Amino acid sequence: MKHGRIAFQGAIHAVTQAADGRVFLADGRLPGENEVEWLAPIEAGTVFALGLNYADHAKELAFKAPDAPLVFLKGTNGIVGHRAFTPRPQDATYMHYECELAVVIGEQGYRVPKERAYDIVRGYTVANDYAIRDYLENWYRPNLRVKNRDGCTPLGPWLVDRADVPDPMNLTLTTRVNGTVTQQGTTADMIFDIPTLIAYLSSFMTLYPGDVILTGTPEGLADVKAGDVVETEIEGIGTLVNTIVQAKE
Amino acid sequence: MKHGRIAFQGAIHAVTQAADGRVFLADGRLPGENEVEWLAPIEAGTVFALGLNYADHAKELAFKAPDAPLVFLKGTNGIVGHRAFTPRPQDATYMHYECELAVVIGEQGYRVPKERAYDIVRGYTVANDYAIRDYLENWYRPNLRVKNRDGCTPLGPWLVDRADVPDPMNLTLTTRVNGTVTQQGTTADMIFDIPTLIAYLSSFMTLYPGDVILTGTPEGLADVKAGDVVETEIEGIGTLVNTIVQAKE
Repeated sequence: MKHGRIAFQGAIHAVTQAADGRVFLADGRLPGENEVEWLAPIEAGTVFALGLNYADHAKELAFKAPDAPLVFLKGTNGIVGHRAFTPRPQDATYMHYECELAVVIGEQGYRVPKERAYDIVRGYTVANDYAIRDYLENWYRPNLRVKNRDGCTPLGPWLVDRADVPDPMNLTLTTRVNGTVTQQGTTADMIFDIPTLIAYLSSFMTLYPGDVILTGTPEGLADVKAGDVVETEIEGIGTLVNTIVQAKE
Repeated sequence: MKHGRIAFQGAIHAVTQAADGRVFLADGRLPGENEVEWLAPIEAGTVFALGLNYADHAKELAFKAPDAPLVFLKGTNGIVGHRAFTPRPQDATYMHYECELAVVIGEQGYRVPKERAYDIVRGYTVANDYAIRDYLENWYRPNLRVKNRDGCTPLGPWLVDRADVPDPMNLTLTTRVNGTVTQQGTTADMIFDIPTLIAYLSSFMTLYPGDVILTGTPEGLADVKAGDVVETEIEGIGTLVNTIVQAKE
């Protein structure tokens, strides 16, 4: 099943997707996708993000692939939903989309072994983990400014139940900018797969329902400008649409 | 006024401090400090932590003082309250307490100028921002494992209203291990003061009520072992007591 969260006629609703693709409210109403205000499908707890988790992307950024998961945390301030507008800072030279499979935790877990890792997964959604590359100063400094701008973590549209995604490690990722494909890859190319990431994180900290792991992006980055419509799509999970606007500052 | 959050007789209560120091429940009950289970005084949103924000501490760790705030994010998994037990990993060689003034945000703010920064502060509490130094691999790698162990971010006991702390940039910080003073400093020695930190963070991301800024620690670190009782005290804010236990792993 696909779960969403929308604002509609003055209230926030947990919704599901009807067979015809429309938004299904608990009270039976069926608004069209464009008639509602999409929120991120979950209220996120701790947001983990992977750096350089696809070998081709690490090479593209001129880095060696890491020998252990390279994980940083993101604030929830950046999270927006499907069809949101994302501001491009006026001083940015490189604002890169990053199409990523987002793994949403459903059960509390500590020291979860790889072979049971999927048991604590609730489902999956699409993330666009924008990076303002200009702000990457050096390795000494955490990438707070690169990855934590408001509006720079679109999530959605749907949270797809784990049971409906039989092989999350074999999904095509595609990004289109104004309709042109600019990034394509497959989750099969992750350096550290989902069970490895869950086992790694839970080896030293408890994972909680609502925590989200953004699993990294393959090669194919490009700068996006105000007015660009960015679609990040993951096979079987959904297509997340996002529009770049100029920041007012 | 001082605000706390406790578990007592089967429920969670927002409490204040009575004139005699006891815990004052909304229904008039007045249990003693040792009769209640202390929780962190707030449910934290995004947790910011400062690296090397006191010059003497930067020197102690053999680093140059940074020329811009060095901020990383912490998960909320680590947060515990007053009198909590904190596990020391079995493989740790250096587990360091860090007495820090925690600034709790009370109002949403974006691009808040220094001169209005205190307007968005709700109040202050004491943090002990434990670090497992062994896990600091290199600057290339974020310090996720150093700073995100469960139980390694005690906060409390009280959130003290901003109005009751006329000069937060002039408070003595003291840590005692088993009654012996091991760390002493003053918030006057911060490299980046509270208004600078709020202006810096809000220059690129929105701060929300419940967000917490751990403002860094002065010199005087020492390894703590299972059984040690660690008291981190900040003048006018409170004394946070925490006991180290051996992790069961």
